[in-house]
Amino acid sequence: MEKVKVQTSILKKQVVRIFQKFGLSKDHASISANALINAELVGAYGHGLSRLKMYCDRISRKVINPKPKIKIKRISQSVSHIDANNSIGFVAADLGIKTAIKHAKKTGIGMVAIKGSGHYGLSGYYAEQSVKKNLITMIYTNAPPAIAPHGALKSLFGTNPICFGTPTGSKIPFILDTSISMINRGKIRVAARNNQKIPKGVALDKFGKPTIDAKKALEGVQLPIAGFRGSGLAWMVDILSGVITGGNHAGRVKDPFDDFTGPQNIGHLFITFKANLFQKNYNQRIKDNIQTIKKLPKIKGVKEITYPGQNKYYRYKKNLKKEIFIPDIIKKDLEILIS
Amino acid sequence: MEKVKVQTSILKKQVVRIFQKFGLSKDHASISANALINAELVGAYGHGLSRLKMYCDRISRKVINPKPKIKIKRISQSVSHIDANNSIGFVAADLGIKTAIKHAKKTGIGMVAIKGSGHYGLSGYYAEQSVKKNLITMIYTNAPPAIAPHGALKSLFGTNPICFGTPTGSKIPFILDTSISMINRGKIRVAARNNQKIPKGVALDKFGKPTIDAKKALEGVQLPIAGFRGSGLAWMVDILSGVITGGNHAGRVKDPFDDFTGPQNIGHLFITFKANLFQKNYNQRIKDNIQTIKKLPKIKGVKEITYPGQNKYYRYKKNLKKEIFIPDIIKKDLEILIS
Repeated sequence: MEKVKVQTSILKKQVVRIFQKFGLSKDHASISANALINAELVGAYGHGLSRLKMYCDRISRKVINPKPKIKIKRISQSVSHIDANNSIGFVAADLGIKTAIKHAKKTGIGMVAIKGSGHYGLSGYYAEQSVKKNLITMIYTNAPPAIAPHGALKSLFGTNPICFGTPTGSKIPFILDTSISMINRGKIRVAARNNQKIPKGVALDKFGKPTIDAKKALEGVQLPIAGFRGSGLAWMVDILSGVITGGNHAGRVKDPFDDFTGPQNIGHLFITFKANLFQKNYNQRIKDNIQTIKKLPKIKGVKEITYPGQNKYYRYKKNLKKEIFIPDIIKKDLEILIS
Repeated sequence: MEKVKVQTSILKKQVVRIFQKFGLSKDHASISANALINAELVGAYGHGLSRLKMYCDRISRKVINPKPKIKIKRISQSVSHIDANNSIGFVAADLGIKTAIKHAKKTGIGMVAIKGSGHYGLSGYYAEQSVKKNLITMIYTNAPPAIAPHGALKSLFGTNPICFGTPTGSKIPFILDTSISMINRGKIRVAARNNQKIPKGVALDKFGKPTIDAKKALEGVQLPIAGFRGSGLAWMVDILSGVITGGNHAGRVKDPFDDFTGPQNIGHLFITFKANLFQKNYNQRIKDNIQTIKKLPKIKGVKEITYPGQNKYYRYKKNLKKEIFIPDIIKKDLEILIS
């Protein structure tokens, strides 16, 4: 895989220009570019520029609405419902988390459900925004079929991440953002694009046989974590993000890369509440929690017990200082899209 | 293992009498007996009568307060904080879910944090109460150290269940109640009491070696589901139930069977909201969701794709009609405690 160097600021300008060319407002283009570039910076390449062409294709094919009329319905001082009108997912999620933050700041707790959205990248990216405001944050979203429910022979649940974030009393937030699959679908996509293998035990091909071929895995079924437990958690996420919100669910979220027959109508749920709602000294308590765990005896070879989000933060800080390396094939995408 | 038959109603009277003898009010004794017998009826023996003697011992040793002065602090119309004053866990949790139900019925959403509680049995038992009122329910509680954080050589997290419940538009609720360990600690306890083996791959002994000996597993470390993902989820539950509530956390919840040096001070968190908060036809939507998943092609040998809580419901209905079989050793506990 050939890689080329690009400056982050130049890259951002290019991506904004591309999204604007495809009809997004400057504001929406900027929100979307920031999310994509953040994914590159934290090393989540499956949610980064590898998806740019897909978003543009969906806009061209009129299954993402570049000029959405987004409706916010306020249900109570703490609760809102958003119909994103098939906007690009980033824009819906950005509004969702900002609304949830506003609710929690005002009443202590906020809950925002979104329908009519699409793939929005990393849940953790939105959780970070809310955690910075000293809110504990829970985010759920569904995704196209990738995992078979326990006992079923066909994939139906998405990789349906569970995301939880909390302030830590330090500058590095605790951001758990874990899919219910053994591996992120995005990582399999990147491997398929770059002709790389995937690890054993994470996916089956379309005949139900284990495979390490990324392309065959995309045609087949991804395995959930922990059998029926993981299947149950994926089902929970489908209900929380799809069934309650008015979004698609039960396997009806379309694959954004392959299925242009309609909008994805993904649903998201954002729950936020003040970290110090019950205990004034929350920051001290969470610091103590993390320090106690970090001091445990370690398995041989482990230098530090890290909390979720910590390594991602280090990668971000490291990558922010230097130029981004992107695969040649994505550089070509950029050149074609911008021309 | 010898087993004896007992009638459910007689059993309940006996357990109430025992709890009253140990100083609980009639009301608190009845709440506690109902929870224990429900665990027997759903087949969750590790949370049932096998724990009765432990509760009585803790009351005798003054680490459960049989006459608690429970304080409820209302933080907003939707949010309350309860200090359970080291009550038996059942009583704290019963008040917690009832308060959360009241909040959600009034404002659409409810959140109740509890500190100063103890082991309360099955999270699913409380979720059921709330789901019956057409509320979606999320419950978190922590537990004594059983699972090592990812990278650590010592157990610190409890089996820390994640519980999620929703109405289904049918009489059988969807109740996911899954611990983050490969197996419930209660099941290992029951196996140890009855000299039974435990499955491979669920626990290590105190030297870090895999074991199928239940007693050695209790001295050792239980394995989390899905490695670092499961470890992250257990950490999340410790924060949600311990750190934010004012309860013990970071491995400080005492083992109720072995450690009488003080109260457990377990924390719980209950989140409830109206199932039809965003979509009026929620019941129809969830029915469609479940039916769609049930219709998927099945793995050979699987008769029905079941949703979480369905099998437990069947067991409950089946057991309710007949007498309960309890191990001889537990029958002896009952006789000693009641005398």
